Amino acid sequence: MAAFATDVQRVTVLGAGSWGTAFAKVLGDAGRDVTMWARRESVAEEITTRHSNESYLPGTRLPERITATADPAAALEGAQAVVLGVPSQSLRKNLTAWQPLLPPEAILVSLAKGVELGTLKRMSEVIAELAKVDAGEIVVVSGPNLAREIAAAQPAAAVLACADHERAVAIQRASSNQYFRPYTNTDVVGCELGGACKNVIALSCGMAAGLGLGANTMATLITRGLAEMARLGTKLGADPLTFAGLAGVGDLVATCSSPLSRNRTFGERLGRGDTLEQAQAATGGQVAEGVASCSSIRELARSLGVDMPITDAMHRVCHEGVDPRQAGAELLGRSQKHEWS
Amino acid sequence: MAAFATDVQRVTVLGAGSWGTAFAKVLGDAGRDVTMWARRESVAEEITTRHSNESYLPGTRLPERITATADPAAALEGAQAVVLGVPSQSLRKNLTAWQPLLPPEAILVSLAKGVELGTLKRMSEVIAELAKVDAGEIVVVSGPNLAREIAAAQPAAAVLACADHERAVAIQRASSNQYFRPYTNTDVVGCELGGACKNVIALSCGMAAGLGLGANTMATLITRGLAEMARLGTKLGADPLTFAGLAGVGDLVATCSSPLSRNRTFGERLGRGDTLEQAQAATGGQVAEGVASCSSIRELARSLGVDMPITDAMHRVCHEGVDPRQAGAELLGRSQKHEWS
Repeated sequence: MAAFATDVQRVTVLGAGSWGTAFAKVLGDAGRDVTMWARRESVAEEITTRHSNESYLPGTRLPERITATADPAAALEGAQAVVLGVPSQSLRKNLTAWQPLLPPEAILVSLAKGVELGTLKRMSEVIAELAKVDAGEIVVVSGPNLAREIAAAQPAAAVLACADHERAVAIQRASSNQYFRPYTNTDVVGCELGGACKNVIALSCGMAAGLGLGANTMATLITRGLAEMARLGTKLGADPLTFAGLAGVGDLVATCSSPLSRNRTFGERLGRGDTLEQAQAATGGQVAEGVASCSSIRELARSLGVDMPITDAMHRVCHEGVDPRQAGAELLGRSQKHEWS
Repeated sequence: MAAFATDVQRVTVLGAGSWGTAFAKVLGDAGRDVTMWARRESVAEEITTRHSNESYLPGTRLPERITATADPAAALEGAQAVVLGVPSQSLRKNLTAWQPLLPPEAILVSLAKGVELGTLKRMSEVIAELAKVDAGEIVVVSGPNLAREIAAAQPAAAVLACADHERAVAIQRASSNQYFRPYTNTDVVGCELGGACKNVIALSCGMAAGLGLGANTMATLITRGLAEMARLGTKLGADPLTFAGLAGVGDLVATCSSPLSRNRTFGERLGRGDTLEQAQAATGGQVAEGVASCSSIRELARSLGVDMPITDAMHRVCHEGVDPRQAGAELLGRSQKHEWS
């Protein structure tokens, strides 16, 4: 294993979406020097000179110690920790370009939540492959962390998962501040699968809301969704307790219940009858993570013989043209005698 | 054990509040003959002649096969199953009067959720004591079941818990209909504690919302609340899996997230600065179940040496005049190094 700084002062955040920007603010508010990389030059300039990122975190004042650039080499120079905040399905392409620029001793931190289409790899596995590091060195951030609420400095608990406890502790120290309380965990598999699966369940909760169903249905989808993500996770070696914690039920409930959640909002549009294309157009061209993840998670579950009925239903709605009403009726009508059968 | 009807056709529901009335509708829609007892003559007459209960389930049309009376003897005559739908803290007084009227072979079903002040008994224990039956014969109803949504015939899953599986199956048959899908379970302790504790956690979620906090905080309270109810439950012999299911996380999420939940609404008023008396006045004199339960559950937990910080905080806000802001800050500021410590 490479050496690393236990007292991380200089952090680079790659990606200036809402969560990347909010996490950069967390680090800045914890007294760290933060450089961000933004894909668009205009966003980088806005962050550096106006201390805001109105496209992704409207109304938020960023700390002045955060600067940004559209040049990845400049952003990465001297970084003691590198936070990867790009969408899961573009992580491979981005990281292929960035690999030669990564400081060899930097701790790599993943904000991405998903399972890669095609390879069926978790994000830390993708990062390990492309950055040519041991997967056990990557720190994964998870928990009930809606970006806009954290940007508003509302108190939040988070989980930092890493097989190497010392690296998690280094990032815990670098990110703890008055409103952000990270806990360490060594179950990377459980935290990553919880984070990926919850986007799909949030899509389904949104879909149910779009169909006019209320809290009973949402709570049932969350309960059954938790059960199906735990089935997949334990099959892959995760600790079942992880799904009962902040990175499991915590992240799931926050994402499913908030109107701020992109996956939930996207699902609502599907439930109200929008096509995938219409829902995408209505959300400024952004596709919710769950739309890609439902297919990759479904494929992963199938390869392991794990039953994931909600994920399966969402794949069929998103990619096989099945009517949300029909998918919902099938889900609710599943023949089951005992709750756990 | 007493004999009982496996094909229950004639059911009495004692209590005409929102959940009692909604459950009577479920039974009526399942083709059963239902007689309700209402405390007020005017409510009984409205149910029988106008097929509605506007005070508790506004806008709901009840099946014509449901009749009601304010005379408990008349209501109970010939019942094959008796559903107890009165508030937890008045169950003892009511049942003391009703005991001589209970048909000896009727299956007793509990809708009440709470822990009795003073005795610290669960509702099925109170019922067993006063009805002079074996606690193992009582069927407990739980799950994500907001009354108004069920009254609107939205699809819902529920749990029927009874140590005697055959009695749970009899009630399952009597209550299953197109929109209500009950599952059986033998963990009465877990289901009852889940149902009682969730009201307290819902109060806390309401309080957080009243203080202006969002979904991250609510999800954190739900996650930590689930952990504290599971600690208490397993200490009392419950199956930890129950808390991961419909009667645990399911009921908890439905109650905490819906604006229809009385406990949540009551907590919101406390968070916005109302006193207990003001909040009570604003809700038509009704006190949310969680206000009494937080004290009895806290006492039960203390007697067993179980740590329940959220329940403790709610007791201090409701009954010791502690400011919600201070209680919230103390909860969020608890020193913890690892998520499960």
